[in-house]
Amino acid sequence: MGLLDEFLKTRVWTEKLVDPLTTDDMVVQPASQVSPPKWHLAHSSWFFEHFILKAFVKEYKEYHPDFDYLFHSGLNGMGEGIPLEKRGTITRPDIKEVFFYRQHVSEAMSLFWEQLEKHTQSADIMKKIELGVQHEQHHQELLLADIKYILGNQFLHEPYVKKEAPDTGWYADKILGWNQVDKGMYTIGHENGGFCFDNERAAHNVSLQAFEMADRAIVNHEYLEFIEAGGYENFNLWLRDGWDWVKRTGAAVPMYWKKIDGKWQRYSLQGVIDVEENGPLLHVNYYEADAFARWKGARLPTEFEWEAAFQVNPDWMYSPVWEWCASAYLPYPGFKITQGALGEYKNRFMVGQMVLRGASLATPEGHWRPSYRSFLYPDAQWHFSGIRLVR
Amino acid sequence: MGLLDEFLKTRVWTEKLVDPLTTDDMVVQPASQVSPPKWHLAHSSWFFEHFILKAFVKEYKEYHPDFDYLFHSGLNGMGEGIPLEKRGTITRPDIKEVFFYRQHVSEAMSLFWEQLEKHTQSADIMKKIELGVQHEQHHQELLLADIKYILGNQFLHEPYVKKEAPDTGWYADKILGWNQVDKGMYTIGHENGGFCFDNERAAHNVSLQAFEMADRAIVNHEYLEFIEAGGYENFNLWLRDGWDWVKRTGAAVPMYWKKIDGKWQRYSLQGVIDVEENGPLLHVNYYEADAFARWKGARLPTEFEWEAAFQVNPDWMYSPVWEWCASAYLPYPGFKITQGALGEYKNRFMVGQMVLRGASLATPEGHWRPSYRSFLYPDAQWHFSGIRLVR
Amino acid sequence: MGLLDEFLKTRVWTEKLVDPLTTDDMVVQPASQVSPPKWHLAHSSWFFEHFILKAFVKEYKEYHPDFDYLFHSGLNGMGEGIPLEKRGTITRPDIKEVFFYRQHVSEAMSLFWEQLEKHTQSADIMKKIELGVQHEQHHQELLLADIKYILGNQFLHEPYVKKEAPDTGWYADKILGWNQVDKGMYTIGHENGGFCFDNERAAHNVSLQAFEMADRAIVNHEYLEFIEAGGYENFNLWLRDGWDWVKRTGAAVPMYWKKIDGKWQRYSLQGVIDVEENGPLLHVNYYEADAFARWKGARLPTEFEWEAAFQVNPDWMYSPVWEWCASAYLPYPGFKITQGALGEYKNRFMVGQMVLRGASLATPEGHWRPSYRSFLYPDAQWHFSGIRLVR
Amino acid sequence: MGLLDEFLKTRVWTEKLVDPLTTDDMVVQPASQVSPPKWHLAHSSWFFEHFILKAFVKEYKEYHPDFDYLFHSGLNGMGEGIPLEKRGTITRPDIKEVFFYRQHVSEAMSLFWEQLEKHTQSADIMKKIELGVQHEQHHQELLLADIKYILGNQFLHEPYVKKEAPDTGWYADKILGWNQVDKGMYTIGHENGGFCFDNERAAHNVSLQAFEMADRAIVNHEYLEFIEAGGYENFNLWLRDGWDWVKRTGAAVPMYWKKIDGKWQRYSLQGVIDVEENGPLLHVNYYEADAFARWKGARLPTEFEWEAAFQVNPDWMYSPVWEWCASAYLPYPGFKITQGALGEYKNRFMVGQMVLRGASLATPEGHWRPSYRSFLYPDAQWHFSGIRLVR
Repeated sequence: MGLLDEFLKTRVWTEKLVDPLTTDDMVVQPASQVSPPKWHLAHSSWFFEHFILKAFVKEYKEYHPDFDYLFHSGLNGMGEGIPLEKRGTITRPDIKEVFFYRQHVSEAMSLFWEQLEKHTQSADIMKKIELGVQHEQHHQELLLADIKYILGNQFLHEPYVKKEAPDTGWYADKILGWNQVDKGMYTIGHENGGFCFDNERAAHNVSLQAFEMADRAIVNHEYLEFIEAGGYENFNLWLRDGWDWVKRTGAAVPMYWKKIDGKWQRYSLQGVIDVEENGPLLHVNYYEADAFARWKGARLPTEFEWEAAFQVNPDWMYSPVWEWCASAYLPYPGFKITQGALGEYKNRFMVGQMVLRGASLATPEGHWRPSYRSFLYPDAQWHFSGIRLVR
Repeated sequence: MGLLDEFLKTRVWTEKLVDPLTTDDMVVQPASQVSPPKWHLAHSSWFFEHFILKAFVKEYKEYHPDFDYLFHSGLNGMGEGIPLEKRGTITRPDIKEVFFYRQHVSEAMSLFWEQLEKHTQSADIMKKIELGVQHEQHHQELLLADIKYILGNQFLHEPYVKKEAPDTGWYADKILGWNQVDKGMYTIGHENGGFCFDNERAAHNVSLQAFEMADRAIVNHEYLEFIEAGGYENFNLWLRDGWDWVKRTGAAVPMYWKKIDGKWQRYSLQGVIDVEENGPLLHVNYYEADAFARWKGARLPTEFEWEAAFQVNPDWMYSPVWEWCASAYLPYPGFKITQGALGEYKNRFMVGQMVLRGASLATPEGHWRPSYRSFLYPDAQWHFSGIRLVR
Repeated sequence: MGLLDEFLKTRVWTEKLVDPLTTDDMVVQPASQVSPPKWHLAHSSWFFEHFILKAFVKEYKEYHPDFDYLFHSGLNGMGEGIPLEKRGTITRPDIKEVFFYRQHVSEAMSLFWEQLEKHTQSADIMKKIELGVQHEQHHQELLLADIKYILGNQFLHEPYVKKEAPDTGWYADKILGWNQVDKGMYTIGHENGGFCFDNERAAHNVSLQAFEMADRAIVNHEYLEFIEAGGYENFNLWLRDGWDWVKRTGAAVPMYWKKIDGKWQRYSLQGVIDVEENGPLLHVNYYEADAFARWKGARLPTEFEWEAAFQVNPDWMYSPVWEWCASAYLPYPGFKITQGALGEYKNRFMVGQMVLRGASLATPEGHWRPSYRSFLYPDAQWHFSGIRLVR
Repeated sequence: MGLLDEFLKTRVWTEKLVDPLTTDDMVVQPASQVSPPKWHLAHSSWFFEHFILKAFVKEYKEYHPDFDYLFHSGLNGMGEGIPLEKRGTITRPDIKEVFFYRQHVSEAMSLFWEQLEKHTQSADIMKKIELGVQHEQHHQELLLADIKYILGNQFLHEPYVKKEAPDTGWYADKILGWNQVDKGMYTIGHENGGFCFDNERAAHNVSLQAFEMADRAIVNHEYLEFIEAGGYENFNLWLRDGWDWVKRTGAAVPMYWKKIDGKWQRYSLQGVIDVEENGPLLHVNYYEADAFARWKGARLPTEFEWEAAFQVNPDWMYSPVWEWCASAYLPYPGFKITQGALGEYKNRFMVGQMVLRGASLATPEGHWRPSYRSFLYPDAQWHFSGIRLVR
């Protein structure tokens, strides 16, 4: 598919994702890490306006002079902006205006396409557009996680969709087994052509000991055994910060789970359903994943082990959930921060976050690569995150 | 005006107040003390459904079984409910549904009116309806304060209305003077017939020393002198908690004020305007009012002094703002808490709040009485609150 | 007793109070409202150094130039000082040095006595010394409350003294009865000669309805009934802030109580003892007092009712505990803040605190007057506070 | 030196370290991460009592039944204990008692020595004693950091010692240069015999690109340039969490630095001294180290690069400070958690901490190895931490 098609398809898909929402759903921010859907709609448009249209299209007419401030990624080059946790207070522009903004940007981009080939900086611009498309796809999955949080925390627990939700429909068809990965040197990171985010570079060698990788993600009944064995009450299973998290929050089950009339239920994007025995465990954080692994006498893979196992056999590593890795999110050797305008946009590396590998049923088609690195704070449960074991 | 007319007028007026808002404005809660407009719309309907329709109208069909839980005053008789600070996370029901709910309740009330006179408990019901009407009027002013907070904290600072806003249009026409109130015994509280809230009873005697009451509220240029004289930096002017508040928040002006290009401006419901020299000072909290009074060599009136001065001459006490009193909000002697269903609704007395007397330009016509007691935590700035001095 | 004797006796008594402590006990601050005993020792000396010796004694040699900053009441005239909650971090000067400081000040005061009568400002100085003595006595009771908190929260629960502790030894000898106080006008506040704090002035008239005052403080078995009837779980009994406090802290008994092997025990200054059925209820806060009163179908007295009842018959109001009043701590009519140096020292009036009346077994002999006003934040439990009912 | 000598020397040294302190200094905890010196004295004794004396010495008489609970490492096997941040509230036992406890343990250990050789588990016991000695040495440096925090935050700023303080006396004698480390495979971790902590195992191969390691730690004048160039105000230099830290705390200089009369001064263990131009930069956290490196166009080494450079030439890596590494503190491949009693003691791996390598002037002689891994939360400044650059 050409880049224009990819662009248009992506723009449409974002809007399709919010189609089942009420305006009210679009605006709120029930937790600081959850962005209002409206903000995703605006911010993914801001990218194209800021980095393409305002930068390269002479005749482009900015939609609104304040949107640049309102919708960049939290902080601009001066460290200023609407704080992350205040996104849910923005009511002006309203949602209608945000849709007009999207349309304005999409149309201007489409118009610009004809000039694009002749443009002296054509190659550079194309790369930035591709980055913008990937950026919007990345936000599509965040959007689903945020929508689930918004609806799943309503007293009314109404469903997002009637069927084919991205957090249902997959079932394990086998008992957990193990695949052997040999000791050796593996090349980690993105090395061939094609798009990648800058955190996937530079590709580099990592020497690994032999290990056995579980042949699928953990499913609900396996985690239920952990719960029922008192896993959440056993101090010895938890990281110190994890134990503090358990005590502070009173956590005793994955996010969205509840026992009703003796039956385990969970909120899914299709509404409240019975917890499926062989369905993939979802919405655990790093602490829970790590405690579960310890209880099983196993451990979580490093991100290098994860990628190496994929190189040995991609089929082994298919997963309906993002899988927590025992690797902190840090730059690869040789990493160079992007300079200039785009550097401003890039997510800075952070300390304190952990890597997740794989992809989930909520990841947009075609968005993922084996070198893809997701990352979250270790207490985050609201993403489509689960567990893969290694030993 | 008959009670039915009063009821209908009040219901319509609430909806008129939210007419200039976008849906987005209806939903958000930018600070824990600010309720979303949607919540006011639903909660004021809940009162009639809960205390009248479900209690006395056999054929009434409840609109939705969960709305009772969602929209009572924060906590039901079991201490359960949506916590105050979570009101801005409710997206289901959405705003359309809430308007249907209002309509459903208003129509059911209108239909019930014909049976009302013949009803055996007619007098009791009429009293409860009157309470419901007053309750909704009370929320109309809260609604305006909350709307102002929502719009006034937008980056875009768009106006609520183009003209005739309830926080503009009044100007002092004289230099501040003083009226003498004699030493003596005054009866405080509501004693005649007519409606009052239960916190205005029992009427009781209070012995007062002579005092002089300022003949109007403080206006902006008087407070500007305090600011420019370094009032916010002078520790000796402040209550200890007030000084902590100044240090913690960095407060240096009333809420909504900002100096732009050397000119004092304020957000009003008509948008950003120049601070009017003789306009009423608005949006100061108790700490600021108290510090200003000390700086002036005066003090704040007690609520008894306020009411006594009104008894001597009502004209003296007209004010475009609520006036902070040096009285904690505590029950009057002989106060009896309402038992049963309505008791559940009543705002419980609280410790730590201060009384405000008078009314503001935002108070609905006909809602106020001289014995009316408003009350807020001492750090609250977002109401239409100002200063009256006494000496 | 002459003022010098009073001075010397008070100085010695403070030191006697800390005699059973280890150095370690002297230094720590286990909660922000608890001052280290060492700080009380230093601060009560600072008063005499700052207001008498440095102000009136030419030849006086300041003990240390930084102690004025370290040991004034939290904040000096510029709003600066060691923050209240950091008192437990001061290790220099150490405790030995603080005792030398006390001795230095006491000796300089004694030496100054001979000149005192001839001094031109003799009367003024005498008044300030008296204030200093009263100030130190006031701190003696705070000291006991703080010592109890420090020792009572140790894992080892060691006693402060072996016998004659100020929180044991009193028992009610009768069933709770009621004394009638007639409707009428009462004069509240300090009006005769003799010492008082400035918050007891000006004396003024208050008109009261008739009421019945309980003839003694509440004792433990009465409060136990409240606990066992589920008082701490019944939302309807609590002020809104009180209910928040219960939920936030998990409070379910008075401070220092614990059920061990089915038996109620409490930490007293004599160590852990059985809760005495007819011993005075101690260490409840305003929320607990108010909830208990509501459960009993009674209420807490206002401070005016308390003082009026005392005027009718002082015997009625003897109490081994400070009694929470349904009165906010606010200045009396005609109150004038002390100007100049002493004004700096005075506790500023605060919003948000409630009055306690009476005195406790821990109050130093001779320190109390019927117009005495104590005051605490409503969540404070660590003082020798209890309950008196009125109806 | 034999193990007994090592044991005795270590026990004595700990006590020597607290010799200059007042009792007051021993007890307080001015910040949650700072343990009172008294706690270090007790906890390092607890190790020997708990793991050696109570486990292997039949005739040993426990000093006090509650000390096991009071002085284990924060949480016992049930997740219970005195919370870390409450250590500064422990006044019973007092400091004298804690010295008796130390003596009791030291003597019992000495007595046990004769039986030790004949003991059937002699080898195991010796290993545990060695671990206890290393554990106490590790606490000796913590103790110095905590003492510095306690004294350095006093208003009086008194020195700890008059001369030869562990945070003074080293000066760089050259301009910063760079040493080349070649691309290749390096073995990281402890592989030979001799003592190491379990986090240094298993030794494993790491493949590294070529890099240049700075030939010494950063000194004060180099960091001053960063400060004076506005480093703390330049958002673009900071990690996102780092920027939040700067904004939240108002940090603008390393801990203990202050400009007085235009001259940079710092609190050292010898008291307040001028910042030495060529003295080692101390007391920066990871955020500061990372921002400085970015400003210099360099970066922080990974812990693997650090250890590899040491292998190439140990002289290159001598440093008077602990050096922040761009590596999260995570277990090495093949790491096995110690089972049983000692596992309980071990510091659990944590997420969110960063590694520091090298040692400081405060590290006890003979305690360090090139595979030694220190670790701290990225906001920690109070350790003897500084910066080494790589490029």
